[in-house]
Amino acid sequence: MRKIADQWLRDILLVLYQHRNVTRAEIIADTGLNPASVSHALRFLLGQGTVLKVGDLASDGGRKREVFNLNAEAAYFVAVDLEGQRIRFALMNSVGDVRYRWEEDLERGEPLDVNKLFVGVAKLLRNLDARQHSRVVAAGISYPGLLDAQGRLTAVNLAWRKFPLLAELRAKARLHKMSGLPIFLEPDRHSSVFAERWLGCAKGHQNGLLLFSERGIGIGVFLDGKPVVGWRNMAGEIGHITIDPDSEEQCGCGKRGCLETVASSSNIIRQYVAESPQGPRDASSLRITDIFEKARQKDAIALAVVERAAKAIGMALSHAISLLNPSIVILAGDLASGEDLLLPLVEKEIGRHTLADLSDGLQIKASGLGLDMRLKGAAALAFRQSLADPALLKKMCSPALARHKAAAV
Amino acid sequence: MRKIADQWLRDILLVLYQHRNVTRAEIIADTGLNPASVSHALRFLLGQGTVLKVGDLASDGGRKREVFNLNAEAAYFVAVDLEGQRIRFALMNSVGDVRYRWEEDLERGEPLDVNKLFVGVAKLLRNLDARQHSRVVAAGISYPGLLDAQGRLTAVNLAWRKFPLLAELRAKARLHKMSGLPIFLEPDRHSSVFAERWLGCAKGHQNGLLLFSERGIGIGVFLDGKPVVGWRNMAGEIGHITIDPDSEEQCGCGKRGCLETVASSSNIIRQYVAESPQGPRDASSLRITDIFEKARQKDAIALAVVERAAKAIGMALSHAISLLNPSIVILAGDLASGEDLLLPLVEKEIGRHTLADLSDGLQIKASGLGLDMRLKGAAALAFRQSLADPALLKKMCSPALARHKAAAV
Repeated sequence: MRKIADQWLRDILLVLYQHRNVTRAEIIADTGLNPASVSHALRFLLGQGTVLKVGDLASDGGRKREVFNLNAEAAYFVAVDLEGQRIRFALMNSVGDVRYRWEEDLERGEPLDVNKLFVGVAKLLRNLDARQHSRVVAAGISYPGLLDAQGRLTAVNLAWRKFPLLAELRAKARLHKMSGLPIFLEPDRHSSVFAERWLGCAKGHQNGLLLFSERGIGIGVFLDGKPVVGWRNMAGEIGHITIDPDSEEQCGCGKRGCLETVASSSNIIRQYVAESPQGPRDASSLRITDIFEKARQKDAIALAVVERAAKAIGMALSHAISLLNPSIVILAGDLASGEDLLLPLVEKEIGRHTLADLSDGLQIKASGLGLDMRLKGAAALAFRQSLADPALLKKMCSPALARHKAAAV
Repeated sequence: MRKIADQWLRDILLVLYQHRNVTRAEIIADTGLNPASVSHALRFLLGQGTVLKVGDLASDGGRKREVFNLNAEAAYFVAVDLEGQRIRFALMNSVGDVRYRWEEDLERGEPLDVNKLFVGVAKLLRNLDARQHSRVVAAGISYPGLLDAQGRLTAVNLAWRKFPLLAELRAKARLHKMSGLPIFLEPDRHSSVFAERWLGCAKGHQNGLLLFSERGIGIGVFLDGKPVVGWRNMAGEIGHITIDPDSEEQCGCGKRGCLETVASSSNIIRQYVAESPQGPRDASSLRITDIFEKARQKDAIALAVVERAAKAIGMALSHAISLLNPSIVILAGDLASGEDLLLPLVEKEIGRHTLADLSDGLQIKASGLGLDMRLKGAAALAFRQSLADPALLKKMCSPALARHKAAAV
């Protein structure tokens, strides 16, 4: 029997992960592998139960083409989103669906307690039977802020400064008897980008911008299919570009007229409260969804602050679009819940400030992945990294057929 | 004898091109090849005369380390810069030095006459003796505007619209009996980036921005060492971002407050003339260097228009820096001649509008390559592409020692 190259398996599994249902011809086209290699590797993957044949498509000539997808239950991945206010956990199957989820609140401003992380993972795994347990391949963690070369995490918004994340993960994994579970880490901007590229609206796009707004505003940039990192891992830190040079509003960074002071969720709420005729009241009782709802009901102040934010975002995006010529721009985070209000305004503003050659055909969309975005990204990370590791790849391709057959009965 | 892999030769020649004088240890470190492969390939290249041993460095331990460089006269490359107002030609040796140059004026607004291009190349080659002639490997052309998938060139500023450049090059090469000379093409932004990365101040930088200003303004972006292209090859077209939303000045593109209307050379001159107390006069008699000279002599109007341009450029760059986190920003084109005035102003403005984490340590420089920038980039393109082509690589490595020895006599 001819040897099956690991690279063939990797390429084929990646195509199946990204496109779910694919024909042999599509696999050949997407991987660039020769047809004999694809057939050979596919036969192996079908035999193992890693890949399933799910049906036939009648082609134009009446000849049937087989359709394949990943056996969703052949491998599991743990996904962790260190969102900041809480840790979110999910066990994802091999096609990016959430099987179990769990959340754990964090103390704001306290150093991260890595024990909570392993307790949460243990809670996820408790739901699995022995067979499923043996098919958990790896974990992916999406983290905010910057991880330095010494593995220390700094996330200013969370008051985490040089927290020794890597060392803590290693130490606590031993303590919780989880040293056998490989853990991969990725900054949240990249997790979001991968989630959108693999499972969201950036599928098939090679050049795009993902603007996410929560407490702060950042852009995840991907070019030629790869996330942009920058010299010191700070690419996308656009929260503090000057968007309104004449503004008197002071930003937390010390400058005036920053994008965040105009357009972040908390600042949209702040502006609404400040302008409100009832006079100043407690902004903490309001959520960004409340402001969007008021704007939908034609509340003039809500409309004005939302419009101001949309214009600022549109202006910032027009600069980024002119610099990088993407084919898609995605709004994500808190602001996605106001897509009905924001998208038309942002699109209009981009049109006003951008050459037609750059904006014609450009897609401007809101993310549909919601709160799961980074969890899906973290799972995609674990999947991708496991493919790259020969031992984990072997685990992903270990016989899963018995279970599949049993499930089909 | 062990076979020498073409890839070893490519990697070693690239390192020598970029760094000129290198030791064996540096070649091994930079290429990542194993020492035996490097020694083997180096012995071959020395034997051919493609590479020369130029001396010994005494290392700390007193042991001498051999220093190598490319035999500058082992290969020649034709470089063409379709600058727009004229075609610039140079014959470059294999270390990027200009051996001969030639210019040919173009009629503004007329379709390009490709015959002129081959006439200019022929003039360059006429200076060579037969031996040198046989060592001309390839030509690189730097072009403005956009080349579409059908090989048609559109450069709006030059009134070239869908000019069939590739077809014309093929047809006229036959006519001028130059079909044997491989021609490689590259957009001017990329040529500039490669010139700065190989021979200018971006050496050793992986992430940078090259802002060039002539009639228009654009940015050449490189990330992870590679130029950014964008979805439709339009990355870097920042001339028409809105930089002054309140401006009444109408841009050629129809919008108001575009970066170009404030900061391009012709618009700096336009503003100076408009503000000048002598009243409007003919702007065509002034060059940008005149405005810079007046500013140096503390002419208030010249200082004001230069400062306005610098602020606009600084603001545009601060957005780009926040988005991409480069380690170097280079000002090139007409504006480089005013670096003494512009650099401090641009640097100050970047500091005002950019997070310290992004601007600390960032280098902001003026290009030192002057008018030769794109010619050097076009030669670098021809060099790089020739390495990738097995037949041209062979030509680059054909015996050159006789000539070298003769020259050394």
